[in-house]
Amino acid sequence: MIRERHLFGPGPSNPYPEATRALAEPLLGHLDPEFLRIMDETCEMLRTAWGTSNARTLPLSATGSAGMEAAFVNTVHPGDVVVVAVNGLFGQRMTDVAARCGAEVVSVDHEWGQPVDVDRVLAAHPSPAIVAAVHAETSTGVRSDIAALGAGLRAQGADALLLVDAVTSIAGIELRADDWGVDIGYAGTQKCLGVAPGLAPFTINDRAFARRVERPRSWYLDLGMLGGYAGEAGVKDGGAGQRTYHHTAPTAMVASLHAGLTRILDEGLEAVWARHQAAGDALQSGLEEMGLELFAAQGHRLPELTTVKVPDGVDSAAVRRELLERHGIEIGAGAGAYAASVWRIGLMGRNARPDAVLLVLAALRDVLGR
Amino acid sequence: MIRERHLFGPGPSNPYPEATRALAEPLLGHLDPEFLRIMDETCEMLRTAWGTSNARTLPLSATGSAGMEAAFVNTVHPGDVVVVAVNGLFGQRMTDVAARCGAEVVSVDHEWGQPVDVDRVLAAHPSPAIVAAVHAETSTGVRSDIAALGAGLRAQGADALLLVDAVTSIAGIELRADDWGVDIGYAGTQKCLGVAPGLAPFTINDRAFARRVERPRSWYLDLGMLGGYAGEAGVKDGGAGQRTYHHTAPTAMVASLHAGLTRILDEGLEAVWARHQAAGDALQSGLEEMGLELFAAQGHRLPELTTVKVPDGVDSAAVRRELLERHGIEIGAGAGAYAASVWRIGLMGRNARPDAVLLVLAALRDVLGR
Repeated sequence: MIRERHLFGPGPSNPYPEATRALAEPLLGHLDPEFLRIMDETCEMLRTAWGTSNARTLPLSATGSAGMEAAFVNTVHPGDVVVVAVNGLFGQRMTDVAARCGAEVVSVDHEWGQPVDVDRVLAAHPSPAIVAAVHAETSTGVRSDIAALGAGLRAQGADALLLVDAVTSIAGIELRADDWGVDIGYAGTQKCLGVAPGLAPFTINDRAFARRVERPRSWYLDLGMLGGYAGEAGVKDGGAGQRTYHHTAPTAMVASLHAGLTRILDEGLEAVWARHQAAGDALQSGLEEMGLELFAAQGHRLPELTTVKVPDGVDSAAVRRELLERHGIEIGAGAGAYAASVWRIGLMGRNARPDAVLLVLAALRDVLGR
Repeated sequence: MIRERHLFGPGPSNPYPEATRALAEPLLGHLDPEFLRIMDETCEMLRTAWGTSNARTLPLSATGSAGMEAAFVNTVHPGDVVVVAVNGLFGQRMTDVAARCGAEVVSVDHEWGQPVDVDRVLAAHPSPAIVAAVHAETSTGVRSDIAALGAGLRAQGADALLLVDAVTSIAGIELRADDWGVDIGYAGTQKCLGVAPGLAPFTINDRAFARRVERPRSWYLDLGMLGGYAGEAGVKDGGAGQRTYHHTAPTAMVASLHAGLTRILDEGLEAVWARHQAAGDALQSGLEEMGLELFAAQGHRLPELTTVKVPDGVDSAAVRRELLERHGIEIGAGAGAYAASVWRIGLMGRNARPDAVLLVLAALRDVLGR
């Protein structure tokens, strides 16, 4: 029996129907001219989604966490100082990944639920090689101001590279990598891009690429070798199709990402952002009207991912189980120390719609008896 | 327009229809009880495909090359001697990956097209930490005798771990990891398993796991952390569902692998091997009857991947282009130095059938004018 779910957790979300259909289309080989066209167009659409003109913008062949690893493994030289803004689980993860790459990590810790304090991050070290932050913390539902962080680095005349996690922000909220001074960014497909998990959209600019590790510890994620594979439009051959075999691209997943991006850009990126904002606003109002308390700091709440405190005396896991069993609705537990005291409700991609807002509110009312 | 291809190259192959349909089924979250059941069953079916009872048998969330990286990054301690049998591109790649992990690599080079010389590999170093070899060399179409290599290591009383690439052998030819003494193995989904590219079936036994690197350089491929994610049936919790969140599993791809494996085991693994053997034998006979010369050493030819010499005066790329454009058939170029002088014809998974043999032979006759 096939179970149908409303995926209203922190991801994956229900894919756009176009993205699902593309998964089931006849498979292409990874060197087929038709697939290379799909790959080139995907990279070009990803540039739009990132707000970048970086030639080296491509979907890595693994999930978003591998994007994080690729970001650090290609740019951290042994002993490099890496300042990491930690305001949730994914900032924490960055410190682990960077340390494994040989970085001297300077962690700037924040209370969970709060945005990154740009001034503290800028003051954390006089000359870091890299400053890293999460744009949309999936663990807490908080948006941080990457534009301000980038502007602050420029104002300092700092030479540091700005490395940003956009897993839960891309195609959900405003993201302008070039305008904001983002040098290296990674994302995932299974959130606001509305595609199944399995790829990590990635971008790196010339400045960061020039400083890369020549032979990184990871062969699979070695951007120097991956460039040829994705064509590196405008870098090597004008995108004319001189491809180097590196590994077998996950062709079905790339075709699906192509379809999801096409759908998003047909609607218009700013319209998609507005749709996420409207759904998130309506959800958050509705939850407060129900007497529930939101977790993320006011003024910094992500529309695509809402965190809400579990009311006293309510069994978090039992509610999630009932939502799943009675209504086919998945919402997320909290992360880390908040596993049992916070719920995470995502309305991402296809699910950023008024009917999804109504449904999740009604189902919560039903299960909570409110 | 949707292009349909006969994928008769070195992979990906055309997936089993069941595997394609599963990709388009409603997406599940990576922590959904229904998905955890699918994951557990997938791991169990992978054990059968590998011929192992290893608890730590799971699909890694990236393509086969990441499986290679996971194999080395989790087991190579800095300065470890790693003997690599190199008889093609993927053996070469192993030397690069192992070196990046800090190994002292001892490369045992062979002429391409020849199988691994077990005696030379056994004599290459008195006390290696790891001995690595490719079971089915995708670059040359050659099968090596992993059973003999494992037996030789045991006869020596060697303490070395045996690490095997089974990307192109799994579910295509006989593979008995436990009987043969394989300690660590990785594979891919896009060859004889008949599933789209995107996952790396992986297995590691207790002996190898006990010697693993505690905090490997890769966070994404850290088996110590991945065990909890895949349930590690029989290791931690008897498969009862105590899962640790590590990364978001590519749920659509795992569901597709589940469907492909179900199809294969319904047919019967030995019947599937026999079907590959019959198709490969018929193809190779037909090619020789056409006056073409096979590349791989006689007696060591893979049935699922046939290498054939491009006749003198024939433009290899032009023939491949014509096959693709006129008949929708993809075959592969040669690898490395043989790019223009060898073709690679794969009849893998769903394509290991008599009609596929007839079609590719007829199309080659047509395009070559023979």
